[in-house]
Amino acid sequence: MSTETTWYHENFEHTGSSIGFRVTRKLDEVQSPFQKIEIYETTDWGNLMVIDGAIMLTGRDNFLYHEMMSHPALFTHSNPKRVVIIGGGDCGTLREVLKHKDVESVTQCDIDEQVTRMAEKHFPELCESNGDPRAELLFDDGIAYMRNCPPESVDVIIVDSTDPVGPAEGLFNQAFYASCYKALRAGGILVQQSESPLALIGLIKAMRSAMKAAGFTTFRTLPFPQPCYPTGWWSCTLARKGGGELTSFRERGAHSKSFQTKYYCAEIHKAALTQPPFMAEALGD
Amino acid sequence: MSTETTWYHENFEHTGSSIGFRVTRKLDEVQSPFQKIEIYETTDWGNLMVIDGAIMLTGRDNFLYHEMMSHPALFTHSNPKRVVIIGGGDCGTLREVLKHKDVESVTQCDIDEQVTRMAEKHFPELCESNGDPRAELLFDDGIAYMRNCPPESVDVIIVDSTDPVGPAEGLFNQAFYASCYKALRAGGILVQQSESPLALIGLIKAMRSAMKAAGFTTFRTLPFPQPCYPTGWWSCTLARKGGGELTSFRERGAHSKSFQTKYYCAEIHKAALTQPPFMAEALGD
Repeated sequence: MSTETTWYHENFEHTGSSIGFRVTRKLDEVQSPFQKIEIYETTDWGNLMVIDGAIMLTGRDNFLYHEMMSHPALFTHSNPKRVVIIGGGDCGTLREVLKHKDVESVTQCDIDEQVTRMAEKHFPELCESNGDPRAELLFDDGIAYMRNCPPESVDVIIVDSTDPVGPAEGLFNQAFYASCYKALRAGGILVQQSESPLALIGLIKAMRSAMKAAGFTTFRTLPFPQPCYPTGWWSCTLARKGGGELTSFRERGAHSKSFQTKYYCAEIHKAALTQPPFMAEALGD
Repeated sequence: MSTETTWYHENFEHTGSSIGFRVTRKLDEVQSPFQKIEIYETTDWGNLMVIDGAIMLTGRDNFLYHEMMSHPALFTHSNPKRVVIIGGGDCGTLREVLKHKDVESVTQCDIDEQVTRMAEKHFPELCESNGDPRAELLFDDGIAYMRNCPPESVDVIIVDSTDPVGPAEGLFNQAFYASCYKALRAGGILVQQSESPLALIGLIKAMRSAMKAAGFTTFRTLPFPQPCYPTGWWSCTLARKGGGELTSFRERGAHSKSFQTKYYCAEIHKAALTQPPFMAEALGD
């Protein structure tokens, strides 16, 4: 090991815990109109993207997050044709969504074009489907995009955002969820990254309350491992328009899917629908 | 938040990643004949035990590890009466094992009495069953204990050890596993903590090879979240004497268990038997 390595630590004030990676050098840095984006090279985790000091993804473990943000929602919906991704500028979620051949169009709306430009340079594998004719990449305000979205036009909305501070704060409140609710067709699904089920269960409860106030009636929080986020254990929360449960999915479709995944599969989907007692109790599921 | 807090980081050389906690002060420290044991008070995670600089457990997240090191093995065995724990000096695994009323005797053999003394002081909840008449606490060499154990006398052996360096190194090789194999009754189960399924899958493969060379023929690695260990995602590996599969268990018993758990339940056991594609491929399961 070179003696020139150093450790990049992110201390999470709200969880009292920290995650870090051993890095060899900073590869790139840009100050966008919205945030500072840095790229580091690590010894064991591929490239590392940091936004305003917060670890966003590594080349090695992002498959966990991107697969779990997309496939459970898409296989829970009976026939998703139209998908919107709010945030997701690294394009990893977009890539996963486009693996579903029956999806007809996907709009990704991230406020910060520089995130995508940095991903194209330093995580090209995540951007390999950006040229798909079904994909539309917008660099705009996701809150406004959802507010202006035609009613009942979308099957699945994926909120792939940073934490509820800074540019992403407005993606975690009732007004935004009401826009999403309006834009969804009946049976449509909203899925959002929902932080650590161990350390931040209060945030998940608050998120569900805001979704409920916006009209959603059924919820399910799926935990999954994610080494680069606080506690190494993360979750996404699904909400459905017009009721309908979220604990079954197109199992046969997931079993016979025509594309490769590294973490998601029908059995893992079922496993993620299982909540440990402490979580079921806290969420009242 | 007091300005006197600081961050305790453990940098894991072998994974290139780091975990840390915000601490308020050091509560205790002892240099035993084997290792240095430190106890810190954290802001959000209860007390923290560190051995030779390695984070061992926190008051808040140890339930994940202790429950998954004990209940899956005990509910997989058809009728466990005699259990041996090698290591486990904090007594948290012992407490979980003793929740099984049909278990008749449990011997915990940890080389370092000071670990237990520190647990009694700073994690008293983990030691609350130490006075159970079925429990025997030995402070001795676990390798010698297993070597001298009467043949075919044990139903479940739990190797609750530190990493394969220092005092615990000898708990990860063929000679030790051969002693375990001899000591187990037919159908008996060996379970060992087996590090991170994402970052250290090579170690799991090496462990299984050594177990196989010692006579074991069936294996199963169960992943679970564990924020205080490298990558926040950990695992235990089960091996069985005399073949017999490890993918089914006493589901009805687990459903109707008479004791409380926070993470383990029958559904979580089933979920943990599910391996994501990348892991199944690497392990050939």
